[in-house]
Amino acid sequence: MISQDRLAKHFAAMKNFSTPNCGAGINRLAFSDSDWQGRDYLISLMQDAGLAIRTDAFGNVIGRREGSSPALPAIMFGSHGDSVPSGGNYDGVVGILCAIEAVKSMQEDGFQNEHPLEVVLFMSEESSRFGSATLGSKAMRGELTVKDLQRLTDKNGTTLYEALKSRALDPDHIEKATYKDPLKAFFEVHIEQGKVLEHEKKSLGIVTGIAAPTRFKVYLHGSADHSGATPMTLRSDGLCAAAEIILQVEKLAAAQTSPGIVGTVGVIRIHPGAMNVIPGEVELGIDIRSISAAAKAEVTAKVLDSIDTITAARSITYDIEKLSDEIPVSMKPEMICFFEKLCRQQNRSFMTLPSGAGHDAMHWASYTHTGMLFIPCKDGISHNPAESAKIEDIILVAELLEESVKMVSKKEFTWNA
Amino acid sequence: MISQDRLAKHFAAMKNFSTPNCGAGINRLAFSDSDWQGRDYLISLMQDAGLAIRTDAFGNVIGRREGSSPALPAIMFGSHGDSVPSGGNYDGVVGILCAIEAVKSMQEDGFQNEHPLEVVLFMSEESSRFGSATLGSKAMRGELTVKDLQRLTDKNGTTLYEALKSRALDPDHIEKATYKDPLKAFFEVHIEQGKVLEHEKKSLGIVTGIAAPTRFKVYLHGSADHSGATPMTLRSDGLCAAAEIILQVEKLAAAQTSPGIVGTVGVIRIHPGAMNVIPGEVELGIDIRSISAAAKAEVTAKVLDSIDTITAARSITYDIEKLSDEIPVSMKPEMICFFEKLCRQQNRSFMTLPSGAGHDAMHWASYTHTGMLFIPCKDGISHNPAESAKIEDIILVAELLEESVKMVSKKEFTWNA
Repeated sequence: MISQDRLAKHFAAMKNFSTPNCGAGINRLAFSDSDWQGRDYLISLMQDAGLAIRTDAFGNVIGRREGSSPALPAIMFGSHGDSVPSGGNYDGVVGILCAIEAVKSMQEDGFQNEHPLEVVLFMSEESSRFGSATLGSKAMRGELTVKDLQRLTDKNGTTLYEALKSRALDPDHIEKATYKDPLKAFFEVHIEQGKVLEHEKKSLGIVTGIAAPTRFKVYLHGSADHSGATPMTLRSDGLCAAAEIILQVEKLAAAQTSPGIVGTVGVIRIHPGAMNVIPGEVELGIDIRSISAAAKAEVTAKVLDSIDTITAARSITYDIEKLSDEIPVSMKPEMICFFEKLCRQQNRSFMTLPSGAGHDAMHWASYTHTGMLFIPCKDGISHNPAESAKIEDIILVAELLEESVKMVSKKEFTWNA
Repeated sequence: MISQDRLAKHFAAMKNFSTPNCGAGINRLAFSDSDWQGRDYLISLMQDAGLAIRTDAFGNVIGRREGSSPALPAIMFGSHGDSVPSGGNYDGVVGILCAIEAVKSMQEDGFQNEHPLEVVLFMSEESSRFGSATLGSKAMRGELTVKDLQRLTDKNGTTLYEALKSRALDPDHIEKATYKDPLKAFFEVHIEQGKVLEHEKKSLGIVTGIAAPTRFKVYLHGSADHSGATPMTLRSDGLCAAAEIILQVEKLAAAQTSPGIVGTVGVIRIHPGAMNVIPGEVELGIDIRSISAAAKAEVTAKVLDSIDTITAARSITYDIEKLSDEIPVSMKPEMICFFEKLCRQQNRSFMTLPSGAGHDAMHWASYTHTGMLFIPCKDGISHNPAESAKIEDIILVAELLEESVKMVSKKEFTWNA
């Protein structure tokens, strides 16, 4: 049975693995001493739960619970243990502690799985240190080369290659980290990092897909004239054009409700930026996300069209700089139905929702049946010392994870059932 | 007769009075060595034109041409000689050189004025050095105290008091700079510093009034949530609220056409300003100007109302910080008619227009009949090394100034004529 005492004790312990004198909250950057101490602690919990530990060339940890039919594909579940600078104690940690607790509960209850189980602790999920996210999953999916490891550096100039060497890992043979065995399923539990569950008063979310951003910069070239001496009719005000674009991004994203889409202008810089000068040059940073690649492409095209129309009407020229255009991930309908059925059977308060943020799970959706569960975090706050989740919600999701793993671990379970 | 050769020679000479190694264009900050050298040169031109020089406690220079009736009120005309950093060769310079040339022309032609004439060179018109504009005029109008001189500092920490002392002026008795004699009229010639004359293809502008800004900051307090994980319906996006405000400022200013008004958002700063975070905090700097205090107050009230409505609809709170609320100046109708009549008689291409920028003339409008004339500057560019005006337009305005001064200098001339 999932134990509140054990979970509470482990969350309290994880708080101690934080680099001192780095600011408030949890500071456990990938491959730092505190990250490695946290990893050691999590390995000890896995061993205590009876898992056989192995690690790969990137440092990812896999704790295996053998199945009564060891040759069957395993069920993998887990999350990451690193944090952003001044982060909280739940992002990543909820996922790995729930995974370990699920197996500990099975051990206590004497449950025998037919398929093998693999609890996974991913390294370097946060982009904070090396500027690239979910690196552990990428390594396991064979998406990192030695060149990548040498190219990615932290703010002190340390390469990811050097960081791996410093932990006695094997960057020269990073291809050995590639996970090649078939899997029956992959599960990840995480805090929502948004306000939807809290707003809808649901204690659990079934993730329908993981959105991926299309990002671009818009550079508007107006005319920086005197604010007093230039009548309204003779202006090419870059900021007014930018204002229209900002509202169009909002309007076009809001108009597309199924599948949901979000559009955000998170960056604006103007020149010269003086009280008595009309802003001539404006830079906008636009981020558009959806779990539907088609919906995202459609809204992005409409935004680009509107930029053309708005600037033409104001005699302003512009440039677009494309930053990224990533492909979103959809969870399989049978996976969503599986969780929904389980929640209904157990009379749990739940809803389905997309994930706006990226997660390790997105790398496994094309590899095996992948499911992801969210729990609410207070006020939607994450990547912040104020990050907080309720122990009741954590217990609930750990129970659901355990139940899911148990069901899927039966030989007779099939996704078409 | 106004001499193109003399004017061209003096404009060329003024280019030499610029602090070296300070960047492109003219660098003649108030009370700098180059400003003082330029002042000496202008004094020499005044003396050459037969003017009797006196200076006041602030360093303002008055060159007097005695009238055949010396006891009558004088007619004052001139402008300033200082520049902004990396400024041009026309802002201020056109006004003082035209004033001197008008008197030189009278001297050559043997014209005898009945009222005395006073050519004035104002010190420290630009706010660039001490953060406050038209200081020379303020001193002459008795609006500067010793405390003010000690309070105003440049970026090196030098006080205006110290700057005056360094030029052997008399900051301890700044009240002596107050101009107390009655005047029959005040005239100033200046470049437009805007695009209206060029756009309307007019070579001369009769200023109807000098706008004064109402300035305030708006601080919007939204919620800095994750751009991916926060649906459009759960946002309090500070930048979207700001965008609506920016467009309302533009719309409300444009809707008020008679008398004209301009509204500009010249400053915007957001926090945190990251691609993946909805902007929570936004700072806007708003500048609203008109030559009508009533129209300005009405539009400002409407803008403030709209800020209230826009933020309420978005569940965003805000603060307003008032920066300034200056009173605009209207030129007297009889002064505008005087110039119009003269232009029509001489078949000149002209129009009336408000001045969006402040000028020394605004301090004299409540003291005497004050008139101001603009000439076009290329592309409306000013306060910039690219500042440029045509010699034909300069000659035209110098001729009109001379003619105006001659007419008003007759004892029988009255404004009611």
